Amino acid sequence: MAQPPAWRRLASTTSTFTAKSAPSKAHLHKPILDDLFPRGYLLGGVHSGVKKDASMLDLAVLLSTSSRPTSAAASFTRNAFQAAPVTVSKAVLDQTAGRARALVVNSGCANAVTGRQGLSDAWAMARATDALLAPSSSPNSPPSSSHASSSSETLVMSTGVIGQPLPISKILTALRPHGPLAPHTLGHGFAAWEAAARAFMTTDTFPKLRARTLPLGDGRTYRIAGIDKGAGMIHPDMVGVPRPSTTSTSTSAPHATLLGCIATDAPVAPATLQSALNYAVQRSFNAISIDGDMSTNDTVVLFANGAGAGIDGGELSTREIDESRDPGVFVRFRDGLTDFMQELAQLVVRDGEGATKFVTISVEGARTYEDAHKIASRISTSALVKTALYGEDANWGRVLAATGSVPLSAPLDPARVNVSFIPTDRSPILPLLVNGEPEQVDEVRAKEILSAEDLEVRVDLGLGSESAKYWTCDFSYEYVKINGDYRT
Amino acid sequence: MAQPPAWRRLASTTSTFTAKSAPSKAHLHKPILDDLFPRGYLLGGVHSGVKKDASMLDLAVLLSTSSRPTSAAASFTRNAFQAAPVTVSKAVLDQTAGRARALVVNSGCANAVTGRQGLSDAWAMARATDALLAPSSSPNSPPSSSHASSSSETLVMSTGVIGQPLPISKILTALRPHGPLAPHTLGHGFAAWEAAARAFMTTDTFPKLRARTLPLGDGRTYRIAGIDKGAGMIHPDMVGVPRPSTTSTSTSAPHATLLGCIATDAPVAPATLQSALNYAVQRSFNAISIDGDMSTNDTVVLFANGAGAGIDGGELSTREIDESRDPGVFVRFRDGLTDFMQELAQLVVRDGEGATKFVTISVEGARTYEDAHKIASRISTSALVKTALYGEDANWGRVLAATGSVPLSAPLDPARVNVSFIPTDRSPILPLLVNGEPEQVDEVRAKEILSAEDLEVRVDLGLGSESAKYWTCDFSYEYVKINGDYRT
Repeated sequence: MAQPPAWRRLASTTSTFTAKSAPSKAHLHKPILDDLFPRGYLLGGVHSGVKKDASMLDLAVLLSTSSRPTSAAASFTRNAFQAAPVTVSKAVLDQTAGRARALVVNSGCANAVTGRQGLSDAWAMARATDALLAPSSSPNSPPSSSHASSSSETLVMSTGVIGQPLPISKILTALRPHGPLAPHTLGHGFAAWEAAARAFMTTDTFPKLRARTLPLGDGRTYRIAGIDKGAGMIHPDMVGVPRPSTTSTSTSAPHATLLGCIATDAPVAPATLQSALNYAVQRSFNAISIDGDMSTNDTVVLFANGAGAGIDGGELSTREIDESRDPGVFVRFRDGLTDFMQELAQLVVRDGEGATKFVTISVEGARTYEDAHKIASRISTSALVKTALYGEDANWGRVLAATGSVPLSAPLDPARVNVSFIPTDRSPILPLLVNGEPEQVDEVRAKEILSAEDLEVRVDLGLGSESAKYWTCDFSYEYVKINGDYRT
Repeated sequence: MAQPPAWRRLASTTSTFTAKSAPSKAHLHKPILDDLFPRGYLLGGVHSGVKKDASMLDLAVLLSTSSRPTSAAASFTRNAFQAAPVTVSKAVLDQTAGRARALVVNSGCANAVTGRQGLSDAWAMARATDALLAPSSSPNSPPSSSHASSSSETLVMSTGVIGQPLPISKILTALRPHGPLAPHTLGHGFAAWEAAARAFMTTDTFPKLRARTLPLGDGRTYRIAGIDKGAGMIHPDMVGVPRPSTTSTSTSAPHATLLGCIATDAPVAPATLQSALNYAVQRSFNAISIDGDMSTNDTVVLFANGAGAGIDGGELSTREIDESRDPGVFVRFRDGLTDFMQELAQLVVRDGEGATKFVTISVEGARTYEDAHKIASRISTSALVKTALYGEDANWGRVLAATGSVPLSAPLDPARVNVSFIPTDRSPILPLLVNGEPEQVDEVRAKEILSAEDLEVRVDLGLGSESAKYWTCDFSYEYVKINGDYRT
């Protein structure tokens, strides 16, 4: 359509907005006691040269040094355009039957839309990291695949700009046997994990790292630690069982992505580890949204090396936790993992681009978990809900409209629906809609709840007993600035 | 989670943004020749008092005065929380078997989340409008329903604020038999249609009205005219066949919604009219997105009264176009209707809250139309794509990530995918991704295309011959201001 001159002239007018800016989140990164990190892992993070600024770390490794078998599980983006490191990590997990025991991660370049060269580079990263593992001493069974020539015990992750080849020689130089990531230079405490976490960062404003003990009820003390990264293009939907892949290796990725690495010293069998990860991912990383956009590189990996199992009667126990044989221990492991991964996932939402609010969306009273999850996801991605949260506006109509737009397993009954705001300071909840009827809202009280950084929006469908939570942030001027103006 | 003092202190800091503002769109409303409006309709729009400002129109009627039978079809939001006028209009269409012949519309109050009273008010609007029709002279067959006591020939639409009762006495006063909307005060040309279009408006910045001739290849001249409204909470997904409704009448609606009314003087049988509308809605109003949020009041109605059919051999032809008996004429009618409704739908996108761009998303080479439609919808709602368009950034990676996130009937092959920007001035297209490989993008040329108000983003999947289009706008500071700051 031809543009009349008036439109073109007017389009160049500008306005000035004064608005809340996103607060500093630096206080969310704190030192952690060395003793809380799992046994039997060595980590490090260095500047290899992928990023231009020499003060920025861009390459991390994690090696399992346990004398017991190490299990590995992973969950990958469902995006059809998967980056080369995703392809390679899937192949390694397949070839080792879940017995990978190392991870290499670079930031600054996503190795995406890089064709055959990208795939070759990702394999080269894996093999260089294998060499750091001293494979002759591996307690793991030999790889089960017939592709013996391409077998590796290393998973690979990349994040950063797309459509550019990896500076692979710089990365391989940093990974050389006696280089800055050689095993004797690595550590197992806070300093080493923190260096690795910094090497994951792209647009993140702080390194994301947590560690804690993991009680499984067997009298031992296991530990779990994790790193993640992400600030934009965050609406992961990851699966543990790879779907049939396409024939091409051409791939793409954005400038931001979700990456997560979790390690525990509990002894867990590979299939059981994958089962626990699938459950936990759905309730943690697959339950966060910053902007509703799914990345092509999203990957979460989980290692369990048994190094915390100690000595039974003078000899090493070779018993690994198995879902069918140890259902009680399995549920404790799965639920402890889920709780820990929720804490890691929430750090990503708190660092959301332009975010000024951290909002929990709770959907209760659903007939099925899937119904509850779908509604929570839809509310979490509604531009109208997210701008209302930014504007601190108690706009329950937008929450209701988003709820009603989701196709469900059975129809909603509007007369059973309740919507409330829940403050996080334990003060009384604020009902907005009660059994389908609007409440006379106390605007002063609503403003009080909405002016806090943290709040919960709860929707009760009144149809059943299933529930799901999502964590999301608001939608601010600064989000538009970061994602619209960053080239100008 | 307890907030440390630093966070709370920093959260109150502000930033100042200077940004492009949305251009004036007033030039999109222009006078139309009286002769282009369909025969046999009377329209009017008045200020009844729903809106406070006495200079703002808020109540419109359309009456078919044709001596032939009038057919009516409609498409309603799929949202589970449907407003009272949606419930009433569905019942009227059902009771009349598609022979409704009037419409009443109010703006300023959505009659939503208003319980039994709201339903009673919507029925009262319908009955008051019936009285203007002089029902004794109706050429339509008697209503087929057994609910004779509640039968009406009037469809109802409302838009505006929610959770408030309609000022029904003001509306009924304006609809009284010898009041300001009595038939002798109504008109059939541009002035009457324009007054009606103004009475549809809420946050719209201009009345949305178009009319044209509709050639069906039978040697006659038929006409079609239409009104619509909407600027925010626009991502309609409407269906012509009502799904089983819930038992409650409690409903909700936001402050903006999509309403459309189209009228033609072609003679079309009711079932055929509904079939054509279903097809056209899917490719027009169900193919636009401003913010990805589906409203609870979205409704499009279509009337066909045969008044343009003229006289055959001295007597009125009673023949109505029937899909199975007249397939050639039907396809011309359906396609002409689709083209006209696309023009109306695009007006809504051009008036999108804060919009500075009008962007066509074309997905080609899909295996199925549904696959193409889903991908086009996803790209149109991606916050990252929309902020990149606002920032005039040739960020094809975001387009690709959105494309790859959609579950399809069969897997994508990344090596067959092409992404291009198409300028609207017929200058050469700009390929960004060719067969899965990134192009070396000419940034000057990209900036040139992106700086225009209109552009097309084309994704070719290379898998088949099906295609779909969506129309969307960018995501600006002003959108956040309108939807986040409007209470402050």
